[in-house]
Amino acid sequence: MELERSPLARPFPHLPKIDGVTLRVARAQYKSWDRCDLTLAELAPETAVAGVFTRSACASREVEIGREQVKLGRARALVVNAGNSNAFTGYRGREAVEAIMAQVAGAFDCQPSEVFVSSTGVIGVPLPKDKAKAGIEAALIAEPCGWEDAARAIGTTDTFTKGKTASALLGATRTELAGFIKGSGMIAPDMATMLGYIFTDALIEPGFLQEMLSKASEASFSCITVDSDTSTSDTVLLFATGKAENAPLASWGDAGADAFYAALLEVCRELAHLVVRDGEGAQKFIEIAVAGADSDSSARRVGLAIANSPLVKTAIAGGDANWGRVVMAVGKAGEPADRDKLSIGFGGTWAAKDGQPLPDYDEAPIARHLEGRDIRIDVDLGVGDGCATVWTCDLTHGYISINADYRS
Amino acid sequence: MELERSPLARPFPHLPKIDGVTLRVARAQYKSWDRCDLTLAELAPETAVAGVFTRSACASREVEIGREQVKLGRARALVVNAGNSNAFTGYRGREAVEAIMAQVAGAFDCQPSEVFVSSTGVIGVPLPKDKAKAGIEAALIAEPCGWEDAARAIGTTDTFTKGKTASALLGATRTELAGFIKGSGMIAPDMATMLGYIFTDALIEPGFLQEMLSKASEASFSCITVDSDTSTSDTVLLFATGKAENAPLASWGDAGADAFYAALLEVCRELAHLVVRDGEGAQKFIEIAVAGADSDSSARRVGLAIANSPLVKTAIAGGDANWGRVVMAVGKAGEPADRDKLSIGFGGTWAAKDGQPLPDYDEAPIARHLEGRDIRIDVDLGVGDGCATVWTCDLTHGYISINADYRS
Repeated sequence: MELERSPLARPFPHLPKIDGVTLRVARAQYKSWDRCDLTLAELAPETAVAGVFTRSACASREVEIGREQVKLGRARALVVNAGNSNAFTGYRGREAVEAIMAQVAGAFDCQPSEVFVSSTGVIGVPLPKDKAKAGIEAALIAEPCGWEDAARAIGTTDTFTKGKTASALLGATRTELAGFIKGSGMIAPDMATMLGYIFTDALIEPGFLQEMLSKASEASFSCITVDSDTSTSDTVLLFATGKAENAPLASWGDAGADAFYAALLEVCRELAHLVVRDGEGAQKFIEIAVAGADSDSSARRVGLAIANSPLVKTAIAGGDANWGRVVMAVGKAGEPADRDKLSIGFGGTWAAKDGQPLPDYDEAPIARHLEGRDIRIDVDLGVGDGCATVWTCDLTHGYISINADYRS
Repeated sequence: MELERSPLARPFPHLPKIDGVTLRVARAQYKSWDRCDLTLAELAPETAVAGVFTRSACASREVEIGREQVKLGRARALVVNAGNSNAFTGYRGREAVEAIMAQVAGAFDCQPSEVFVSSTGVIGVPLPKDKAKAGIEAALIAEPCGWEDAARAIGTTDTFTKGKTASALLGATRTELAGFIKGSGMIAPDMATMLGYIFTDALIEPGFLQEMLSKASEASFSCITVDSDTSTSDTVLLFATGKAENAPLASWGDAGADAFYAALLEVCRELAHLVVRDGEGAQKFIEIAVAGADSDSSARRVGLAIANSPLVKTAIAGGDANWGRVVMAVGKAGEPADRDKLSIGFGGTWAAKDGQPLPDYDEAPIARHLEGRDIRIDVDLGVGDGCATVWTCDLTHGYISINADYRS
């Protein structure tokens, strides 16, 4: 099945060289396709690492092993396989991951625990060890490649490559961040797992790196949804090579910590948005801002209830200012709400306030807003000070075509 | 928009006369359509009543008032309005309901609190009091009608009328139950709220009637989903006229209580299934049986996570034995599960056992099963003794067409 490029796509940006990171790609031929499907990142010795992973109770071996590896805090290499997720494959899946770790550790003279592995693609089929081995051998002797090549090789049903950069001043030292991501749903294990990788030359202590990534992830990757489905393999890793030789960051009080966090959040948020922009069948990008909630976390849950509502998402797909469906989604969220204090707007225009349609409600500006690609929904619960913003896409015939008409 | 009759429809059954229940319909013309849209049920004095309602925090006035009325335990009449849900309409909505209650109470010489009102249809528009008044006047002098006419008049986007009967022996006395329901999603406030009404001639104390309805509802209406969306108006009422003159039932120990409960559960379950069979765009009816869970309620939550997964539902729509998506849905349910003990089957054939695909997995019988209209998914979590069964339908282009292509 050939997928059309998402109308919400953004061009791949220019990403800077990150000192201490060397990227290579190869053809492991996990599927019978004419493309690179293995990305190998070589990282300078002593690179710090942090990671966030799916909360699925049925996570893949790669995720299980990755969760343990990040606790050790150091990385020397990353291998990403596209075309086979290696999930739900029992002991053979574990053996395949361990073989990759051992092979790369041998090549780079490091501990296997410093070699991170991710896989995405069909599930229930153990990753073929021979193809992985040959792919890595090829990658090890390949010419280094650029960011977009590395991003393209990890894609599966993605319709465009996704990257983002930012920089931060740590004292007098300028540090760079560069990241890429794949994903096109929230997300089925055999279709479009979200895998994201961010690299920086900053020198940061691993524990603090993890703290910043966890916090940034809560406000970015945890605030997006395409279809409410959660992958068995979702992974975001952040690697800090330390080559910028800044005074090391180890806590929020250190000079530049706030600047670095702001840059990291900017990268995480854009990468998260790009996944939504490549959501299966997406025709519109939807931002949902919830205010007046009992707490920030309550606001986020209400926002996700709206973002996950098939009826809200189909209404937006149809350009229908159906605020009644937003009322419904608020009502089902299970969070503190008061129907008679609830206000709902689209594109900066209120449609209903304090539990009733506005008496002089004029649908025209809202209808015009809903004809666009970028949709904004405002919800004020009127019960407290909590607020949150979440992002999703609309639900269209394209989603059904990709997931029902196409046999995996 | 003219909707095609669901391919999963069942014929309306013959329902017996229930002594103490008189049904009438009228044209209130809540919308400009050529059909009856108001159902009035007159109930014998001293009829006992029980009810279950949506858990939405933004419930309609009808639901708010109904929750209070059922505590009093007695009903003399039921009015159902189709075409306007009267939800999110502020004080004017409340006035409209109270006017109906007063008018009918005057006609039947009863308390307004004995008059139950439900409304379904567009939200945000107060129910027009003049139309309701004229409709009720017309209904009061209309000839009594049959069950199917009453069921048809409460429908909105339903593509077929839905009814069910059962009987129970209470000691030597045969009692009858008859019920009808409307609904075609789980369910948008302006599209297809679930409203169900069950009538019996049995003599049952209101508190115990409520206990039985709540229990039966947990195992029927609470185990279905079409799209995970929850209506602001969902209501199921159970009326017991007492005309059978059986020895009154007041607790589980009374002779015939178990028989009555079994009959009630049979009615509730079939009515629930019929709503799924009329699910928006439904082409397949899906039964999901979860065993080996930590508890029955945990099994139900896992079942609903599978039933609400767009990726599972689109896979079934496409006839795809994609058990990997079931693994994904189990993983995201947030319930105790162990990937390496998980087994998944379709139509009585296991596809994966103990966390791995079966070595001799033959997809042919499963593929044949998935070509049918009635699909069965078995999940064994392997961690305990809890079990539950839930029901849903597939997710098709029809759902998108109804909810996105059609402007409300």
